[in-house]
Amino acid sequence: MSILRRKLYRLIFEADTPQGKAFDVALLVLIVLSVAVVSLESVVSLRREFTALFYRLEWTFTILFTIEYFLRIYSTPRPLKYVFSFFGLVDLMAILPTYLSLFILGSQYLLVVRVLRLLRVARIFKLTQFINEGQVLSRALRASATKIAVFLGTVLLLVVIIGSLMYLIEGRESGYSSIPKSIYWTIVTLTTVGYGDIAPQTALGQFVASIVMIMGYGIIAVPTGIVTVEMSRSERQGMAASRVCPNCHTEGHLAEANFCYNCGYSFEPKV
Amino acid sequence: MSILRRKLYRLIFEADTPQGKAFDVALLVLIVLSVAVVSLESVVSLRREFTALFYRLEWTFTILFTIEYFLRIYSTPRPLKYVFSFFGLVDLMAILPTYLSLFILGSQYLLVVRVLRLLRVARIFKLTQFINEGQVLSRALRASATKIAVFLGTVLLLVVIIGSLMYLIEGRESGYSSIPKSIYWTIVTLTTVGYGDIAPQTALGQFVASIVMIMGYGIIAVPTGIVTVEMSRSERQGMAASRVCPNCHTEGHLAEANFCYNCGYSFEPKV
Amino acid sequence: MSILRRKLYRLIFEADTPQGKAFDVALLVLIVLSVAVVSLESVVSLRREFTALFYRLEWTFTILFTIEYFLRIYSTPRPLKYVFSFFGLVDLMAILPTYLSLFILGSQYLLVVRVLRLLRVARIFKLTQFINEGQVLSRALRASATKIAVFLGTVLLLVVIIGSLMYLIEGRESGYSSIPKSIYWTIVTLTTVGYGDIAPQTALGQFVASIVMIMGYGIIAVPTGIVTVEMSRSERQGMAASRVCPNCHTEGHLAEANFCYNCGYSFEPKV
Amino acid sequence: MSILRRKLYRLIFEADTPQGKAFDVALLVLIVLSVAVVSLESVVSLRREFTALFYRLEWTFTILFTIEYFLRIYSTPRPLKYVFSFFGLVDLMAILPTYLSLFILGSQYLLVVRVLRLLRVARIFKLTQFINEGQVLSRALRASATKIAVFLGTVLLLVVIIGSLMYLIEGRESGYSSIPKSIYWTIVTLTTVGYGDIAPQTALGQFVASIVMIMGYGIIAVPTGIVTVEMSRSERQGMAASRVCPNCHTEGHLAEANFCYNCGYSFEPKV
Repeated sequence: MSILRRKLYRLIFEADTPQGKAFDVALLVLIVLSVAVVSLESVVSLRREFTALFYRLEWTFTILFTIEYFLRIYSTPRPLKYVFSFFGLVDLMAILPTYLSLFILGSQYLLVVRVLRLLRVARIFKLTQFINEGQVLSRALRASATKIAVFLGTVLLLVVIIGSLMYLIEGRESGYSSIPKSIYWTIVTLTTVGYGDIAPQTALGQFVASIVMIMGYGIIAVPTGIVTVEMSRSERQGMAASRVCPNCHTEGHLAEANFCYNCGYSFEPKV
Repeated sequence: MSILRRKLYRLIFEADTPQGKAFDVALLVLIVLSVAVVSLESVVSLRREFTALFYRLEWTFTILFTIEYFLRIYSTPRPLKYVFSFFGLVDLMAILPTYLSLFILGSQYLLVVRVLRLLRVARIFKLTQFINEGQVLSRALRASATKIAVFLGTVLLLVVIIGSLMYLIEGRESGYSSIPKSIYWTIVTLTTVGYGDIAPQTALGQFVASIVMIMGYGIIAVPTGIVTVEMSRSERQGMAASRVCPNCHTEGHLAEANFCYNCGYSFEPKV
Repeated sequence: MSILRRKLYRLIFEADTPQGKAFDVALLVLIVLSVAVVSLESVVSLRREFTALFYRLEWTFTILFTIEYFLRIYSTPRPLKYVFSFFGLVDLMAILPTYLSLFILGSQYLLVVRVLRLLRVARIFKLTQFINEGQVLSRALRASATKIAVFLGTVLLLVVIIGSLMYLIEGRESGYSSIPKSIYWTIVTLTTVGYGDIAPQTALGQFVASIVMIMGYGIIAVPTGIVTVEMSRSERQGMAASRVCPNCHTEGHLAEANFCYNCGYSFEPKV
Repeated sequence: MSILRRKLYRLIFEADTPQGKAFDVALLVLIVLSVAVVSLESVVSLRREFTALFYRLEWTFTILFTIEYFLRIYSTPRPLKYVFSFFGLVDLMAILPTYLSLFILGSQYLLVVRVLRLLRVARIFKLTQFINEGQVLSRALRASATKIAVFLGTVLLLVVIIGSLMYLIEGRESGYSSIPKSIYWTIVTLTTVGYGDIAPQTALGQFVASIVMIMGYGIIAVPTGIVTVEMSRSERQGMAASRVCPNCHTEGHLAEANFCYNCGYSFEPKV
């Protein structure tokens, strides 16, 4: 019994065996397919034509995910800890909406929740080599959190003041009907998205908008600068940390170096 | 009396005591709420429904800010200097519009001025750790001021010439009704905002627009490059500043330095 | 006979002789012209007016490309290998649609395939100095492939979840008629393209859109950071590669190296 | 006579005297004002109301620029060389359209040429400190010319192929009426401008557009990376070139260094 559980655990939770990897790939395919079905089901014309097919597919996915969920509970050494962990809750949320839809009729909102199944993909990727790269990216973002906060604060301040100004200038017409709407327009403009659903009509409004756009040049450069500097720093540290000369303590030696580039000390112990 | 004033001063102007911090947080919440109210009041449907509520909230904020304003004048050692300082004027502007609205009817424009209360947030953040990061950012921007000026000059030159060209090509129709409007379109395009309220209709116009957009690729890269280089320089200097000569206490030594650049002191212990 | 073939081979496949270069330039002009003709032919008004001209031009290009194709087969030492190589197939595709259009009437789709002739330009540029720069660019992109994959994965996850959320919020109206459409809108917004064919109408939708746009700030910074760091690394390595150890001929020494990292040879002449 | 000419030359062509600077500033103001007048004259409503004013202003500017033009010819040692130099022709173009408009009636096109007066500003800035920063920027752009050419070539190739593909997919409706138009749309999308005057309507078209937009992420990162790397290289070289130790030939010494950070050599001659 215990051996079966341990085997199941390795199969389901780990990816260090060929079977474990195959299980992960199958699960990945299933998740992506099920989200695709949820997504296509929302297209009115498809929903009308393939009602029965979508229904059957949905229940197939749900039953498979339910079996997987109970196997996870069964095989894990501490079931309660798993159930209330982040991924345990995500796994539950992946199956619950379909069962609930049996009792609550017309629960369109509930069914959309099923796209959150996509979060389960995050667990699968955790098990691969991707995690290292992801860490470099997220470390770079975290390291510059304060800079980003200052930047966002400044942007929010600018956006509220410019938004209010445009509300005054454009005189409540041509879309600038309230301050929140004008703030929305300012964000659309500063981020260079520019829908055009709201656009200045008066000469003064267009002049202020031009200044806002040119300011946007500089503003969009700041997060790029922050991220680039952080990434190049974290890359440099990764390189430098890898090798230190035991004689002169210089850093940054190439992986293939046999001698210290600074003092000529031999890295190989026996020579 | 003097002790009360000093205590008030520490409470209101400084943030080094728990009470001072609590005061700042309360003020911050109050400012954000009051700006939110001003902003929501501009939505016609909400203004109609909640007239009385907005009125009462607005006067509550104004009276609280008025009390705070007079406490600041009372507790500061040099009241006049405070009143005419930048933040003193911002504080006054935060309360004046509401009082004036009693005398000047329908003064919508005046009331929007109250969003400038948000500037008061800047003072609160001055007291926190954020200031350092803000300085790094603003130093980076200031250090590249000349480069940015040259860049902006070139952009303005381009924008006027391209705008005039498009005015000629598009023949006063499809939105390019005047040179200023065509310049506005060029800015919208070069900054990659692209509202689409004005868009070229003729084949030649679309061809020129395509060239402008591809030029925009290169142009948007320049401010990003400037800011990134400046930020990485100021970061490098920050790092270098951490190394101090034990002999003459100068800062800013390179990581690979063996001798102090100022006094020639050898950093290596045994030599 | 064999000499003719070898001469032809040098003329057509290589660019180290003046005649070879002239041949390449002529071919380049021909390709660009033929694609321009295909492209202009798609304009209804031009197709009506210049039917005969387009017809004659098209057959001129096709016959010239056919002659070239058979000369390539004739002159190459291994004709079969050429025919089934990537460029061999591209060359065939450049002439086939015109001949097929004789048999299949109204084959508009087929004729558009002829723009793929542009791919033949890639071969010509292979022969010039441009190849080196292209390699630096593509190496930079390849080196950061894992980072880019993680980034794209995160973006796709975000885009599906935000798209579904907007589908719920905007309530199937104003363009958000299905989850795939909402995902399309999210991509349009996150990449700061912002067509405006679909734009949020409800207050909540505009609020969520604002958050998405500000997130877009950070997200667009990531690929820029990745590419910049990779390019500056590959440039640095290019620089380092220029320094060669006079003793063991290894490359890639740091600019500040005093000793060869491979054989320990001292770079300083007098020591 | 010769002294007057030399004095005039220093006044008009140089900026090393207070009078020369004052002349430049006055000219700068005049140029900006005259271009503003040309620009405002194109606004129909203003042209109707202020016909007489615009007429008088225009002739004032033209006569002033004419006097300046002849003074330049008179004072320069080699008049012919000046007349046919780039700036000589720009100066002529600044006055010619107004005179020609006396003979050619309704010459709207001709009058727009006057905005090229703005090019004269470039000469004035040549005389200031801005030139150095401008050189750093332009050197950075020139140094990466080959990389930029490869990048542009790839973009053009992509744009033609994607444009043709979209022309096939969207089936000649919803704006994709010809291949050139579809190419225009692809450029609008890849550069993240996104007017929305043409937007995909079919599901397949929106899918391909989504891929194009996500490709745009990576593509927009390339010029930014190129410019950033070039700018940081040219900055580094500027720094490194400034000081070399005469003893050990290390570079990159701080401006305030008294001793070499590598060998401890004293930079001051007398100590």
